[in-house]
Amino acid sequence: MDQKLQILLDTIKKLVRRGAYPNLIKVLSKSHPADIAHLFRYLELKEQRILFNLIEDPAAAAYVLSELDHNGSAQLLTQIDKETISEILHEMPYDDAVEIIRLLPEEKAEEILEGMQAEDSEEITQLLTYPHDTAGGIMSTEFFALREEQTAREAIAALQQAEDVEMVFYIYVTDDRRHLVGVLSLRQLLLVPPETPLKKIMTGEVISVRTDTDQEEVAQQVARYNLLAVPVVDNGNRLVGLITVDDVIDVLRQEATEDIYKMAGAHEEELLYGDKPFKIARLRLPWLVTNLFGGVVTGYLMWLFKATLKEVIALITFIPVITGMGGNVGGQSATIVVRGFATGRIDFSILRKVFFREMRVGFIMGIVCGAVIGLVALAWHHNPYLGLVVGIAMVTAMTVATSMGVAAPSFFKKIGIDPAIASSPFVQTANDITGILIYFGTATFFLQHLH
Amino acid sequence: MDQKLQILLDTIKKLVRRGAYPNLIKVLSKSHPADIAHLFRYLELKEQRILFNLIEDPAAAAYVLSELDHNGSAQLLTQIDKETISEILHEMPYDDAVEIIRLLPEEKAEEILEGMQAEDSEEITQLLTYPHDTAGGIMSTEFFALREEQTAREAIAALQQAEDVEMVFYIYVTDDRRHLVGVLSLRQLLLVPPETPLKKIMTGEVISVRTDTDQEEVAQQVARYNLLAVPVVDNGNRLVGLITVDDVIDVLRQEATEDIYKMAGAHEEELLYGDKPFKIARLRLPWLVTNLFGGVVTGYLMWLFKATLKEVIALITFIPVITGMGGNVGGQSATIVVRGFATGRIDFSILRKVFFREMRVGFIMGIVCGAVIGLVALAWHHNPYLGLVVGIAMVTAMTVATSMGVAAPSFFKKIGIDPAIASSPFVQTANDITGILIYFGTATFFLQHLH
Repeated sequence: MDQKLQILLDTIKKLVRRGAYPNLIKVLSKSHPADIAHLFRYLELKEQRILFNLIEDPAAAAYVLSELDHNGSAQLLTQIDKETISEILHEMPYDDAVEIIRLLPEEKAEEILEGMQAEDSEEITQLLTYPHDTAGGIMSTEFFALREEQTAREAIAALQQAEDVEMVFYIYVTDDRRHLVGVLSLRQLLLVPPETPLKKIMTGEVISVRTDTDQEEVAQQVARYNLLAVPVVDNGNRLVGLITVDDVIDVLRQEATEDIYKMAGAHEEELLYGDKPFKIARLRLPWLVTNLFGGVVTGYLMWLFKATLKEVIALITFIPVITGMGGNVGGQSATIVVRGFATGRIDFSILRKVFFREMRVGFIMGIVCGAVIGLVALAWHHNPYLGLVVGIAMVTAMTVATSMGVAAPSFFKKIGIDPAIASSPFVQTANDITGILIYFGTATFFLQHLH
Repeated sequence: MDQKLQILLDTIKKLVRRGAYPNLIKVLSKSHPADIAHLFRYLELKEQRILFNLIEDPAAAAYVLSELDHNGSAQLLTQIDKETISEILHEMPYDDAVEIIRLLPEEKAEEILEGMQAEDSEEITQLLTYPHDTAGGIMSTEFFALREEQTAREAIAALQQAEDVEMVFYIYVTDDRRHLVGVLSLRQLLLVPPETPLKKIMTGEVISVRTDTDQEEVAQQVARYNLLAVPVVDNGNRLVGLITVDDVIDVLRQEATEDIYKMAGAHEEELLYGDKPFKIARLRLPWLVTNLFGGVVTGYLMWLFKATLKEVIALITFIPVITGMGGNVGGQSATIVVRGFATGRIDFSILRKVFFREMRVGFIMGIVCGAVIGLVALAWHHNPYLGLVVGIAMVTAMTVATSMGVAAPSFFKKIGIDPAIASSPFVQTANDITGILIYFGTATFFLQHLH
């Protein structure tokens, strides 16, 4: 956090403690709503409620609420009464209002929608029909579009009167049946004689997305073509909305965070339960159970080899390093594949190449680590065969682990399960099990030399 | 990949195989450069070289090269001769040219800079003095700024003549000593009488960053305030550059990918070595060595308890589950903290809270998993004391693991080491070691009951 914000935070906390509300109102009205939103995450829920109710300008309150992350606003919403929420929603662009409504308990949401002006509630209800992670679910319907036969002069006049539209930098052009036919920039308007029809200056090839396009795909398009906004069309290529780059940035950050959390078996929702360890534990436990089960199976396999182990107790000393290294390199390969799918850098067409590359990488690293650990085993227990067993097991386990690291996420992706969430427990458990089997298998093979 | 691109890719691959270069030239000239750049990642290096040399418009070639990710362009650059690179750099905005120059071997870069027009090479050399991950390192110097005493009419006239500037949507206003004093949007220009001086319509409070601001901080600012661009000023608040939102999106994606890779102990650079498993192995090995060492230490600790183990061989069956679960929950906590630092959601002021929350979460999950595994031990080996030992060890190991998961990345952050890269091997190794110590410690304590 930069110094300016730190000072603001300290001031606010002090004023809240003192109950100096008139001073707080003054401080809040002078601060940028985005800064206030940013500071909310460092405040207790109680402090948040006090502060939020002191924001006098409903537009500023709306801005703060829509700039909080989902979990932050869901939490805060439980603290605000229905009337205040309605008032704030009225100040918001429809797309932000829809996001807020989605966070409310169904009953409360319905009551609020009923209390709204007919025009607003119709628009919002319509937007609510789109799944929240599609272009339709995040688009704004307050965009600026003109007809192709209008002139540059008319366009400028329209711009001067436009209010309540999302940031204008592109002007979208439609035909008489609202089909999207072109786009032009504000600057282009200034470069032509005033009577030029838009049809003459617009670019005909517009990059657009459909209402049912996944939000991750939308973000990729905007990033690829360096767009500031992308128009949304329905099945009939009619212009129905607009997604601006600031929403795309939110999507990108949110998806990255989600993926990172999922890969570790944690949940983004956890942030919602800042102070509720029981709820957090309940979110994480299902995933851990997979590993608990896997751990027991691994232990059972070791138990099967208990006669071997009793005879050659030195074998136990290399169990952790074999399963550990397998888990690590497998995890690396899985991470590369999961992130590759998410960023579009890997798809099924090049999967074969990735698979064999990772396998070779695993084999090379296995040779190095196997040689090191084999020498350690030799030096420690003075038994060359133990060194051989440990070395061979290490190479095999690491090679298998990398291929499994590619195979598991690809399999889950193929059958339509999010690879970010499914790969990690599966890869770890599978690697433990194969690691133990390979290790004791090799040991049993060389058993007569190990004594 | 969407269908349109898939078809384009198939066509291109077929034409390259056939050597149908005239057709390829036609296809390339009709495709969006961003699409071509996107498809490059699915092509072999040899195909890339052929294709790149067939792009006839140097501006399109420049666009393709700057839209490739760093690794892609570094790879491609090795295939292009100096003259072509010079020609392409001339077509690029300075900020993109600087990125390309940074990717070249030093000697080649110097030769190219020397061959450039004096004006270009001076500008680029100046930009190269900023570290690549700061605002100065990613900013563009071709921005649009006007003086405060100019009028709206003059501004519009200047806009009509402006060429070669980054997308214009904000107009920055400076005083007579180039200090940044205000900002206004293009639309605001259209709303006032033509003779109004900019001073009267501009907003005085401009959010700006300094040349030495970290690029991650720049991205956070742009995201927080929903900006389309942010001006860059030097120490004396003089306007020296501009960072547009498309560059910010690249930064956000790149940092997220980097973090994800680092957390798994892999490297973003790996992508550069698509087909060079030896190079990839060399990148990953240093990190694995930490774990190799940790695994040996864990094994050594088990060896210290070999007498106990020989007496109660059943103890081995729960080693994998205890160390495995510790590693998992510790990794979850570490992930949450590392990502929290990266997104600014966690900082040192709330670390204490996070630490105790994670510890409590670990304890609760430990109770559940400990009870399950204790019952498994009882049912399997018919020894209630074994169940007790396993259960107690599980609760302790999981609680310690979560606290370590918070402590390790915080420690690394504090001493200035990137927590994303340092936490994972450290947390895993430390958890293995403490897990074994806790497990055998508890077992030794109850040893007389375990027979």
